[in-house]
Amino acid sequence: MERKSFGDMQCPIARSLERVGEWWSILILRDASYGLTRFDDFQKSLGIAPNMLTRRLKGLVESGLMERKAYSVRPPRFEYVLTEAGHDFRPVVLSFLAWGNKHFAPEGASVLLKHTKTGKTAVPVLVDQVSGEEITSSGHFKISAGPAADDILKKRLASKYDTLI
Amino acid sequence: MERKSFGDMQCPIARSLERVGEWWSILILRDASYGLTRFDDFQKSLGIAPNMLTRRLKGLVESGLMERKAYSVRPPRFEYVLTEAGHDFRPVVLSFLAWGNKHFAPEGASVLLKHTKTGKTAVPVLVDQVSGEEITSSGHFKISAGPAADDILKKRLASKYDTLI
Repeated sequence: MERKSFGDMQCPIARSLERVGEWWSILILRDASYGLTRFDDFQKSLGIAPNMLTRRLKGLVESGLMERKAYSVRPPRFEYVLTEAGHDFRPVVLSFLAWGNKHFAPEGASVLLKHTKTGKTAVPVLVDQVSGEEITSSGHFKISAGPAADDILKKRLASKYDTLI
Repeated sequence: MERKSFGDMQCPIARSLERVGEWWSILILRDASYGLTRFDDFQKSLGIAPNMLTRRLKGLVESGLMERKAYSVRPPRFEYVLTEAGHDFRPVVLSFLAWGNKHFAPEGASVLLKHTKTGKTAVPVLVDQVSGEEITSSGHFKISAGPAADDILKKRLASKYDTLI
């Protein structure tokens, strides 16, 4: 058992990791972002044992990231769709996609994001909507304590984290 | 044992997850992105057992995401700095940050990204560098098979994944 609960940490990254639980959950959210909704399709895509898939989907529903909806009454059939919070996870999935393609695909990309109108391959970068600047290349952004930070976090962010991203 | 190896999957997301291993590694990469380099500082920040931190740092070095460098010869002292691949992980960390702040900080944000010149809080969004369009809100992007996709992946992406992101 290598994990402890991150949910009580103030850090929003640690709390996010708490919600997605482990890798399977991220890959399920990936597939859901790509449009899958049915148990059998997730199972085929992931090659995951059915009982584990059931458990992970249940966890994602309990965390408020997916919703279980009946799409047929007779026979009763259910599908799993992203909630707003689950939908908002797409930038994380796509950031993983860009990172994986850049560094861990020596044979070339197997999966790409494309613009539907131009057909061109997209290059996802993180931009600040307020200033319009690219975040990780501009040298103009830093991590700071927010209004809800407690004293310990404030001190830590002030001493060590007041660093350009 | 809930994990299997994702490294042999063609999906760049699965391969990325293989590299970062588990949550501790993501939180170490978070701290490294924030500017931490020393064992003691990581340890204090994470509240992680030293032997586990040693193991995780070793894993990140082996995966090519961090580098162990001597910063003092007598006494011998080492620090851990991000490689280019580790540095490029920042968009994933910051996407987690934005997601956590939006959905899992009911008391308000504890950690924010700020513009150093204006002091304004940044709002990170994923933009396609080629078209300049915001990816997840435009409805103009889809997941497609890349040149290195094998037949199974191509078929799967064509049938199920040809979906707007």
